[in-house]
Amino acid sequence: MLVVMQPNASSADIDRVCEEITRQGFKPLPLPGEVRTAIGLLGDDAKVDWSYIEGLPGVSSVLIVQKPFRQASREWKPEQTIVEIAPGVRFGGSEVPIVAGPCSVETEEQILTAARQVKAAGGVALRGGAFKPRSSPYAFQGLGKQGLELLALARRETGLAIVTEAMDERGADLVAEYADCIQIGARNMQNYSLLRHVGTLKKPVLLKRGMAATINDLLLSAEYVLSEGNPNVILCERGVRTFDSATRNLFDLTAIPVVQKLSHLPIVADPSHGTGLRDKVTPMARAAVAAGADGILVEMHPTPDKALSDGAQSLYPDQFTDLVKQLRTIASAIGRSITSI
Amino acid sequence: MLVVMQPNASSADIDRVCEEITRQGFKPLPLPGEVRTAIGLLGDDAKVDWSYIEGLPGVSSVLIVQKPFRQASREWKPEQTIVEIAPGVRFGGSEVPIVAGPCSVETEEQILTAARQVKAAGGVALRGGAFKPRSSPYAFQGLGKQGLELLALARRETGLAIVTEAMDERGADLVAEYADCIQIGARNMQNYSLLRHVGTLKKPVLLKRGMAATINDLLLSAEYVLSEGNPNVILCERGVRTFDSATRNLFDLTAIPVVQKLSHLPIVADPSHGTGLRDKVTPMARAAVAAGADGILVEMHPTPDKALSDGAQSLYPDQFTDLVKQLRTIASAIGRSITSI
Amino acid sequence: MLVVMQPNASSADIDRVCEEITRQGFKPLPLPGEVRTAIGLLGDDAKVDWSYIEGLPGVSSVLIVQKPFRQASREWKPEQTIVEIAPGVRFGGSEVPIVAGPCSVETEEQILTAARQVKAAGGVALRGGAFKPRSSPYAFQGLGKQGLELLALARRETGLAIVTEAMDERGADLVAEYADCIQIGARNMQNYSLLRHVGTLKKPVLLKRGMAATINDLLLSAEYVLSEGNPNVILCERGVRTFDSATRNLFDLTAIPVVQKLSHLPIVADPSHGTGLRDKVTPMARAAVAAGADGILVEMHPTPDKALSDGAQSLYPDQFTDLVKQLRTIASAIGRSITSI
Amino acid sequence: MLVVMQPNASSADIDRVCEEITRQGFKPLPLPGEVRTAIGLLGDDAKVDWSYIEGLPGVSSVLIVQKPFRQASREWKPEQTIVEIAPGVRFGGSEVPIVAGPCSVETEEQILTAARQVKAAGGVALRGGAFKPRSSPYAFQGLGKQGLELLALARRETGLAIVTEAMDERGADLVAEYADCIQIGARNMQNYSLLRHVGTLKKPVLLKRGMAATINDLLLSAEYVLSEGNPNVILCERGVRTFDSATRNLFDLTAIPVVQKLSHLPIVADPSHGTGLRDKVTPMARAAVAAGADGILVEMHPTPDKALSDGAQSLYPDQFTDLVKQLRTIASAIGRSITSI
Repeated sequence: MLVVMQPNASSADIDRVCEEITRQGFKPLPLPGEVRTAIGLLGDDAKVDWSYIEGLPGVSSVLIVQKPFRQASREWKPEQTIVEIAPGVRFGGSEVPIVAGPCSVETEEQILTAARQVKAAGGVALRGGAFKPRSSPYAFQGLGKQGLELLALARRETGLAIVTEAMDERGADLVAEYADCIQIGARNMQNYSLLRHVGTLKKPVLLKRGMAATINDLLLSAEYVLSEGNPNVILCERGVRTFDSATRNLFDLTAIPVVQKLSHLPIVADPSHGTGLRDKVTPMARAAVAAGADGILVEMHPTPDKALSDGAQSLYPDQFTDLVKQLRTIASAIGRSITSI
Repeated sequence: MLVVMQPNASSADIDRVCEEITRQGFKPLPLPGEVRTAIGLLGDDAKVDWSYIEGLPGVSSVLIVQKPFRQASREWKPEQTIVEIAPGVRFGGSEVPIVAGPCSVETEEQILTAARQVKAAGGVALRGGAFKPRSSPYAFQGLGKQGLELLALARRETGLAIVTEAMDERGADLVAEYADCIQIGARNMQNYSLLRHVGTLKKPVLLKRGMAATINDLLLSAEYVLSEGNPNVILCERGVRTFDSATRNLFDLTAIPVVQKLSHLPIVADPSHGTGLRDKVTPMARAAVAAGADGILVEMHPTPDKALSDGAQSLYPDQFTDLVKQLRTIASAIGRSITSI
Repeated sequence: MLVVMQPNASSADIDRVCEEITRQGFKPLPLPGEVRTAIGLLGDDAKVDWSYIEGLPGVSSVLIVQKPFRQASREWKPEQTIVEIAPGVRFGGSEVPIVAGPCSVETEEQILTAARQVKAAGGVALRGGAFKPRSSPYAFQGLGKQGLELLALARRETGLAIVTEAMDERGADLVAEYADCIQIGARNMQNYSLLRHVGTLKKPVLLKRGMAATINDLLLSAEYVLSEGNPNVILCERGVRTFDSATRNLFDLTAIPVVQKLSHLPIVADPSHGTGLRDKVTPMARAAVAAGADGILVEMHPTPDKALSDGAQSLYPDQFTDLVKQLRTIASAIGRSITSI
Repeated sequence: MLVVMQPNASSADIDRVCEEITRQGFKPLPLPGEVRTAIGLLGDDAKVDWSYIEGLPGVSSVLIVQKPFRQASREWKPEQTIVEIAPGVRFGGSEVPIVAGPCSVETEEQILTAARQVKAAGGVALRGGAFKPRSSPYAFQGLGKQGLELLALARRETGLAIVTEAMDERGADLVAEYADCIQIGARNMQNYSLLRHVGTLKKPVLLKRGMAATINDLLLSAEYVLSEGNPNVILCERGVRTFDSATRNLFDLTAIPVVQKLSHLPIVADPSHGTGLRDKVTPMARAAVAAGADGILVEMHPTPDKALSDGAQSLYPDQFTDLVKQLRTIASAIGRSITSI
């Protein structure tokens, strides 16, 4: 940490900052400059209460050196984490798994058809919501436990791993019972009670980036899960809020190499929510793999025209089949491969 | 709703859209133009599944006419809602209540001192967190139930109403037991399970705007609470994410008149979180009242230098006393008054 | 400046950074920490080429201490600058001038009527575009030189000072000839050729904040004008881009106290462009004065329904008259007054 | 266009809107609904002055159907435009040209070395600034005309096409004399005087997206150039402003397929400015080609450590050589190829 004093700070101001740093158990190091003084602080400054120091008289700003997340950082664990949600479905290695399926589980026929199509096209995991966070209380909210049972049925029929969202603690317990990976949605990325709870469960967690979350925020939310003892966290880029209504979200693919430098956790991308538009999903899924994504989540529906939610961003089964072929070529171009099981 | 077709849409495309509108129970009205056709839809289009129609062949875009929120809208209820959280502490009328207190409840002495200072300066409600949503799992997380007991003690000592945050359903039940108003924080604005739960409780809810929430999102989240039967919702502007790091958030005061036109619910402003900087709190609190805010939330700490959280944005007691005086003048300039009890 | 090394940086990496700092003429000061080393740099680091150092092996990040603007900073000139654009029309003192008028100069009758209404209501300067930057090349682009002549005529008739926009160098020369203050619009805030040019003219400059400009960017653009020898720069907050389409822009009133702390230059606010909606102009103009704005720019049109541009955000003359009355009360509440001449 | 009335709008309000639509030369079509009336407008609504209608009594909102740009739209010209800036260097076809070079032209040796390295690695055009728009007036501003002469020399030596920026009209005339393509930078994207001027020149224009420009804004700026008679416009995505400081900008690759659907103009991507970080350039350049970019702009410097500007985002020559190889494989995966000459 570096405390930058104002040019007109008095020596009493400087002394007070030094005393406070000492009081907090650290060693201050004043650096007098031509125009102003800065005060360095040696040691692990993640524990310093900088907000107090920032408010002291004569302080211009506080520059934080340490990253506030720890277990999620590459400095804590340099080697890449590989999260295996089911036999052979590994995120973070050289293979890139494709997770696909409808926005919501609707009927037995719909989800079984979808699962078979995902499997046939080359996907290795099935996504589909049983609990749906909808902006409007009047929109379809999902089938709940019955949806989970249908997902489990689809797994028995096809062998696909199951990834599905939980919105609260009770839901997370149920999801952990039926599925292979608990998804935490963008709207709950800073629902710390829920994060702590899934940190105590034994299932991998797929944590989606919030709509206005910085990479730092995302890694801090992952830290909540890790700090409770669950090391199996997969991060997911799914677009952030922006000023242009041309797309639903701004799909931030640079987040992929940024996360991969800062953290050992795998990061996947969701071009369906990231763009919100069916005809943008294929190019952006290709771009995500080219950028180095450790997996892809795609919405596909047997009959998007009849979907109860998000139909406009779901691929048709044929489009999904074509996409997987393209992704195989892109992956090989960067020395990776699309996971097959 | 208006479905805008592409210029090259075929008549079969147009027919298909009309059929789908009919299938959903509405009446389509084609409007042929010089360059392209648009299709109007008569009736209450809040129930239409537009996302499906948007994905049909030949469709260029779908323009939504109805607002997706209902009970929160002025069209549903033209007269202003007044939420009274304790005798005389009314939000939404001509009086403007001031809610103040520390970021966190820390000790009995701290909270009692703060409460007496708030009371003496002219505040009518005490804020202070017992459950704290912190970005980092390693930061101080609040005293929990003990904090609520201290808040209740402060109420007995001073007569101030109590506003405090709940982060999950269990916490909300506890807060409802001890406090006068349940605050839902920005990070939980779209935690729909929690919103539904507080909708079933009998206490007023203060709902903070999420960091990237549109006004529409905020009103839809209020709709979750209203739709469960709790009509006492106070909205709160507290700043949104932006590209400029000069302030912690971008305090969107225009949200106040915007909400007041769209909704009958009261809206208050929190300049402490809205700016994140102590020396910006006073001018922006004045600006909020001048813009028509139905109440003000301010962080004040007996000794900000020793605060366990957010010390840098807390006012000193003297600053708060001066602020209340200024607010009285500003309120009278627009024909309102600061609530006294 | 502080160069933060990666935890695994070698001593060769550290030496190289120190050498580079020395090569650039500064003195490096290594600060070994528990986890990593940081390297302080003593002296005026505004001249350091940090981008090169940031790219050196082993460097984690570079923290800049000095502000990149100089003449615009309060550290350079602690006393407030007062810009007088015409006798008695002073920005930056305790008096707050109101500048009003139509978006565009349209006809002699329109601009003379507007000027008389502005004068009668209590405004001291007339705004109105002769050169209009329009998003579409097919929209009305202004009357050009003829518009300037009409503005000069309005000044002779009413005594109001004239503020009008220039979009290029030739236009700036013309504006300087006819008007009292050259406005640089948001879209040209980083048109450095134009900024340098108006820096060589003898007229005050009103510089509007760009749609995605940070406060730092705004002050750096002001620095372009100051560095050419023109000290009379008035800054203007007029809203920034955001994700919510509820208003045209997000009006950032906190920019007012932020600029006032960092810079000695006056800052005014434009609630008409800042909100884009007529019925939000009055509350937000009040809020701007309450926040401490050094002046207000408002669009008013004799007949907004017939305006050739931006009619929907122009006040009716009666609304403007009422607004000025309200602003007098708000100004007095904070110890200031609205300028009268 | 659809004018949506408020639920409580009177029939007089409705009549007035219809009259105004008629007055502007269009045909109104009232659509009475259950809750409110909407009024359709038939014909080419790009010419309607909607801002006035939006301000009429009883109007809730105005929904615009027509796109405001014309010549830039695919509806105007369905077939893809191919811009050839030099023999064989075509943007918009199946071949993808790579443009590379240093941020600034610094010396004869530097630019000749860079040009030879670009050529050897497989680039077909040289970029390099002679006129540099710098945030600070004190930073290096480019060599000006001498820089253009050095670029022309590099073209004679290597056969590479030249792309370089102009900041004002005089500069554009000079650039047109020496180079093959005039770049308009992000800061000048809405400098309409400059856009009009380059619209009258005979050289292709590479138009960079502004820092907070929507796709719509970008196409409207292109319209300024097209409307003056210059059909050769290449658009460029280079990142937009965002709330996360983890990267300099948010690189919006979805803009590529979005533009390709709306417009016939080619669009290229600049991962160097789009990310601002050298180690993110390679993955994001790959992602851009995978997303369908019609060309790539990359900063490469013979010795980035010694660059006078933007050194931290310039690739080393070896990195650039490796990147071109990777791009060839990615391009072939989507049925395209990297341009060779």
